[in-house]
Amino acid sequence: MALAAAYPEDRVTLREVGLRDGLQLVKAWPSTPQKLQWLTREHAAGVTHFEIGSFLPASRAPQFADVRDLLAFVKENAPGIHASALAMNERGIDDALSTSAAEIACVVSATEEHNQANIRRSLDQAIGLVRYAAARRDELGHHALISVGIAMAFGCSISGSVRPSQVLRVVEACLAAGADIVGVADTVGFAGPDQVFALSEAIRKLVGSGRFLVHLHDTRGMGIANASAALDAGCRILDGALGGLGGCPFAPGATGNVVFEDMAFLCHTKGFDTGIDMDALIRVREIQREAMPGETFHGALARSGMPKSFGPDAGSEYRGR
Amino acid sequence: MALAAAYPEDRVTLREVGLRDGLQLVKAWPSTPQKLQWLTREHAAGVTHFEIGSFLPASRAPQFADVRDLLAFVKENAPGIHASALAMNERGIDDALSTSAAEIACVVSATEEHNQANIRRSLDQAIGLVRYAAARRDELGHHALISVGIAMAFGCSISGSVRPSQVLRVVEACLAAGADIVGVADTVGFAGPDQVFALSEAIRKLVGSGRFLVHLHDTRGMGIANASAALDAGCRILDGALGGLGGCPFAPGATGNVVFEDMAFLCHTKGFDTGIDMDALIRVREIQREAMPGETFHGALARSGMPKSFGPDAGSEYRGR
Repeated sequence: MALAAAYPEDRVTLREVGLRDGLQLVKAWPSTPQKLQWLTREHAAGVTHFEIGSFLPASRAPQFADVRDLLAFVKENAPGIHASALAMNERGIDDALSTSAAEIACVVSATEEHNQANIRRSLDQAIGLVRYAAARRDELGHHALISVGIAMAFGCSISGSVRPSQVLRVVEACLAAGADIVGVADTVGFAGPDQVFALSEAIRKLVGSGRFLVHLHDTRGMGIANASAALDAGCRILDGALGGLGGCPFAPGATGNVVFEDMAFLCHTKGFDTGIDMDALIRVREIQREAMPGETFHGALARSGMPKSFGPDAGSEYRGR
Repeated sequence: MALAAAYPEDRVTLREVGLRDGLQLVKAWPSTPQKLQWLTREHAAGVTHFEIGSFLPASRAPQFADVRDLLAFVKENAPGIHASALAMNERGIDDALSTSAAEIACVVSATEEHNQANIRRSLDQAIGLVRYAAARRDELGHHALISVGIAMAFGCSISGSVRPSQVLRVVEACLAAGADIVGVADTVGFAGPDQVFALSEAIRKLVGSGRFLVHLHDTRGMGIANASAALDAGCRILDGALGGLGGCPFAPGATGNVVFEDMAFLCHTKGFDTGIDMDALIRVREIQREAMPGETFHGALARSGMPKSFGPDAGSEYRGR
């Protein structure tokens, strides 16, 4: 699929990553029918983009063993869903390219140290994997977009602070290697809104709004503020997880991905039409709770409900700060 | 006390309102010794400004019956604390002026309808109360600052949306009536960051950074994003409650005041030195939990802890978005 059709620059795209990033650390995960219920109900509420699983060996990540089934379901029954899947090595990429995935997500860490620790490759080798994915995709004539998530883009759990100029170099290298779209991830929740604004603005100036996304965690409560700053800087693609599912491997007990439904409300207050039915979206949390009774779910909107006087144009008079 | 000494314009002042606004809706409240422990421990962590109680009849608000004791304690034992107390009518103001309160807080709603519903006065009469407070204070030669919280400044639970121009008129009327400082409150959590930025910027242009504050609730998860927007617009005084204590009378079960400790972390990421010891601050939550075992406390930082590599200058390279 062409990039501009998958991610139109003139609107905000919110991507549900709960089915992948959200399940990374859970003790028990939803069954395949429960995942399909989550997926179809959230799609019916107006969400179109999902990170749906990971092509890791089932022995290492059993929660994603059904990734092919989910992709097959989407192809057959919900072609309106843009389904992305993670691949961490050449075999994962080959596997992903044997499915109908609309997007294959690779991971490159912003720092040499974290690449070594996370995937036992150098930064150059990690970018080589992106090159492999794009080349194989072209060779096979597959339609998938190649995306890269740059982990630790706002600070690294191993090497500490990360310079924006370093992240920009990695962004450029990923695009040069053939990536269609690049994301910067606040993997460990180090960023505040000023950092997110500065880096997002620098990336937008370099590559435009249509080719980058921001992936935030709410580890230290900055998730929505950071999402707002990213939007202010011209970012138009944001990741989140319904109920803030997920965690942080480096801060046990910490809050997870930025809360999807609160982020959707943020977009509405800022005058962006996401096409999402908020009440229907919030009801999908029931499926999560039923499927994962041991997990903590986050988010304010599910507790408060929408403001009674909040119309579709509520934010429009303020738009364009 | 002179305004500029109580609220220096060149730094951010975070005010703990948990002991007043936070206790407005709780089922059981801390004993006086527990309140004093909360107050002194949070002061020792570096917090200097507290809304300490309310001069309402004890029959109507028994949780604030000890307001005189708390003020006397501050005078005797903790003169470094700037203690504010709420007064809703002439008798409350007279009572407050018979104590050593450093600040007397009045409330005016932004809309005619909410003034009538909340305090059975017209908007003009509510502003008349501010005039009374300032005149009596001057008559008595009392040192207290007079502050006004403008409720429903971002939307009203009765009359719906509220125009910024209307709020600006109320701000001007309160200052003309003798208020030293005016706050705008997102009482029911209708605002997003663009609304907060726009209104805060307009007020700053009208009255300067030293004479207004923003009082936020996290009802719909926008609290920290809104605080960030207020700071971006030049606001330098923000209210919050440790653990996000408090609620919303119009959204049962909703999150309460913006989480104080997460807001302090926000300030650090934005390069503002609050003088607060974050670890010591977070430990004060233990007193809250012990004193109010039935309450839900919020906040991400208490779950995650501070980032390991986060030095005092972490935000400085980004300051001044």
